[in-house]
Amino acid sequence: MVKIGILGVGTVGTSVAKILEENADIIEARAGKKIVVKSGVVKNINKDRGVSIKISDNPLDVVDDPEIDIVVELMGGVDEPYALVKKALENGKAVVTANKALLAYHRYELQEIAGDIPLMYEASTAGGIPIIGALRNGLSANHIDSIQGIMNGTCNYMLTNMINNGALYDDILKESQELGYAEADPTFDVGGFDASHKLLILASIAYGIDAKPEDILIEGIENITQTDVDFAKEFGYEIKSLGIAKKVGNGVELRVHATMIPSESMIAKVDGVMNAVTVVGDRVGETMYYGPGAGGDATASAVISDIVDIVRGNQGPMLGYKKGLESGLKLLSKDDISTQYYIRLEVEDHSGVLAAITSSLEEFGISIESMLQKPTQDEAIATLLFTTHTCKEKKMQEAITALGKLDVVSGEIAMMRIEK
Amino acid sequence: MVKIGILGVGTVGTSVAKILEENADIIEARAGKKIVVKSGVVKNINKDRGVSIKISDNPLDVVDDPEIDIVVELMGGVDEPYALVKKALENGKAVVTANKALLAYHRYELQEIAGDIPLMYEASTAGGIPIIGALRNGLSANHIDSIQGIMNGTCNYMLTNMINNGALYDDILKESQELGYAEADPTFDVGGFDASHKLLILASIAYGIDAKPEDILIEGIENITQTDVDFAKEFGYEIKSLGIAKKVGNGVELRVHATMIPSESMIAKVDGVMNAVTVVGDRVGETMYYGPGAGGDATASAVISDIVDIVRGNQGPMLGYKKGLESGLKLLSKDDISTQYYIRLEVEDHSGVLAAITSSLEEFGISIESMLQKPTQDEAIATLLFTTHTCKEKKMQEAITALGKLDVVSGEIAMMRIEK
Repeated sequence: MVKIGILGVGTVGTSVAKILEENADIIEARAGKKIVVKSGVVKNINKDRGVSIKISDNPLDVVDDPEIDIVVELMGGVDEPYALVKKALENGKAVVTANKALLAYHRYELQEIAGDIPLMYEASTAGGIPIIGALRNGLSANHIDSIQGIMNGTCNYMLTNMINNGALYDDILKESQELGYAEADPTFDVGGFDASHKLLILASIAYGIDAKPEDILIEGIENITQTDVDFAKEFGYEIKSLGIAKKVGNGVELRVHATMIPSESMIAKVDGVMNAVTVVGDRVGETMYYGPGAGGDATASAVISDIVDIVRGNQGPMLGYKKGLESGLKLLSKDDISTQYYIRLEVEDHSGVLAAITSSLEEFGISIESMLQKPTQDEAIATLLFTTHTCKEKKMQEAITALGKLDVVSGEIAMMRIEK
Repeated sequence: MVKIGILGVGTVGTSVAKILEENADIIEARAGKKIVVKSGVVKNINKDRGVSIKISDNPLDVVDDPEIDIVVELMGGVDEPYALVKKALENGKAVVTANKALLAYHRYELQEIAGDIPLMYEASTAGGIPIIGALRNGLSANHIDSIQGIMNGTCNYMLTNMINNGALYDDILKESQELGYAEADPTFDVGGFDASHKLLILASIAYGIDAKPEDILIEGIENITQTDVDFAKEFGYEIKSLGIAKKVGNGVELRVHATMIPSESMIAKVDGVMNAVTVVGDRVGETMYYGPGAGGDATASAVISDIVDIVRGNQGPMLGYKKGLESGLKLLSKDDISTQYYIRLEVEDHSGVLAAITSSLEEFGISIESMLQKPTQDEAIATLLFTTHTCKEKKMQEAITALGKLDVVSGEIAMMRIEK
């Protein structure tokens, strides 16, 4: 019999306890041993969790309990779980965590501390989708060319509604909050931060890149308008908030942002709150993994798959490699990202304006791929929408600043990146 | 250092040898040890394979070589590889096989023989997609409600072209043969037999069902016409050849056939030669795995992922469970399959005909869900297309026989199953 202690018996923790009990038949058959939850730790011991496990408000009751074999960390936060996971590993206990923030900041220290003790985290990224296993095991023969992930259900739900139903950003945000898909302060989701944590975890397995959220380009979906949506449709794109990791020579681009992607690509077809991750390996080509990115039971499914793996005696280093993965791979600076861009700006509607803009772009070596001009309410002002050929982020940022200074350009300039 | 011997150095075997050499850096980092191919076995030792490994035409040179740690079986066939894999396991060697036919017939004996020695087979099903790992490990917390797989790229390529481009069956079969997607005798692919082997493998992991291809319903795509395609489009369906495993009470339906599925489902969006498998777990909900189902490098990617797993010391029983999985789960007989049906038949075009058909169906307890009547070249004959509500396969087969005897019905009656 294997005994589990759960730090944080909230929605996911409760699901873990319930599934281990209700699906005990199949889980025991697969793991080869009976798995039971011995105890759990919560902040408020007076709240009923609907599960019949011993509850304490002292994490050490789990972490220091010699009878507990596997500690499941579902607390959230960074510093406290880091200290507790560290202690559990030092006590020789295997650890399963769903905590993406903990890993976004401390995965390399934790791999070091864990050594040969299993520390697993399938639930940290894309909820119920076994993407960690796919990347860590299933694709191990491959150098990874790129990863593109829809890893935030809130953003995808909102964008799907903006594109398929013409919903306005503010309206669909409000609806998402009412449905419980978005928090009262939605910044962590719509700002791309949640996805950035997950991207960093995947990038570590794929590339061995040690970066923190503040090192990479993170942008949200807050500035997308129906004008952008209409343009995307007209030119055969969907708009998705993607976490992107891409190997370019000896560099790796890591970025999270709203992205125009061809409508016919598989990941463009992923709608609503669902998550999906596309991985391109140098040998296998493109594979995609699709499923629910959140929810108590779906996340618990991933947590328990890790527990079963540990009970089966599976080994292997936490991040999937025992020594430096690909020597020389470095995080590319934001400036060096290179991609195609979509630009929306308002201009005075008279002759010579287009020439002024294209010649301004040319100064930065940027050429236009496609263009659309639309009238606005104001007769004197037109909306200009265009896409560029591939250029460096630094040049594009400089070009946007320069365009903003042109007399003929009025208001904010909006930009979105394109991935083909 | 881990030494590999390859039985069958054809397309996949050559890819395995090349990738192990060319991606040695990353594979060694992930596995923790250097992996080298010591020798290979082929039928014709005079043919150049383009790889610099020792070649023999005697399988025992690999299977009985005490220096070889892992035998990779890529021969195809059933009896000879069975004997050799058995011998390799008895010699204490781990085995990796991509041989779906071998597993469709002998997976349970092989699990028994293997015991604690790793016997892995990720490449046997859906090529480069790590679906075996997902089902065996990633979804281990779940009772599996259903599996739907596009597991034959030839069928999917042909159907995609029939649906998207209006290609005729015979023309697209010829094109597929010219492109090398279909064999000169295409029966194994278009008849559903290839997919049935893969379905049986997945059903063993999901349900512990011990069945052979001849025990289950297998139908091909040979009778699909543009009339069916047009109907499908009009009523919001795609047509896919699916391998389906579905738990119904204590029974499991296993079947391979052309299927109408709602266009908005994710698996309906999988086009061309690509494969995909949707798995619904009772806790995680729907997940889907997408990628290349064939090709030397993609298949080799899966073979090597198994090798890496073995070198890492990963354990766990071959089919993913150590004792009976879900006691009482039984393969449902073909008669007891229950689903919705699409029927195409030609009828005399006069009053009373519809009444004759519906009342004939009613005798078998079958009711019509939607209907479409179309004129044919012959003024006196109409094509009648309809879908039914859910009924038992036995009733539907009886109804088709009865319809065929009606005076007003002329020619063959075509049937396709619908999954929603």
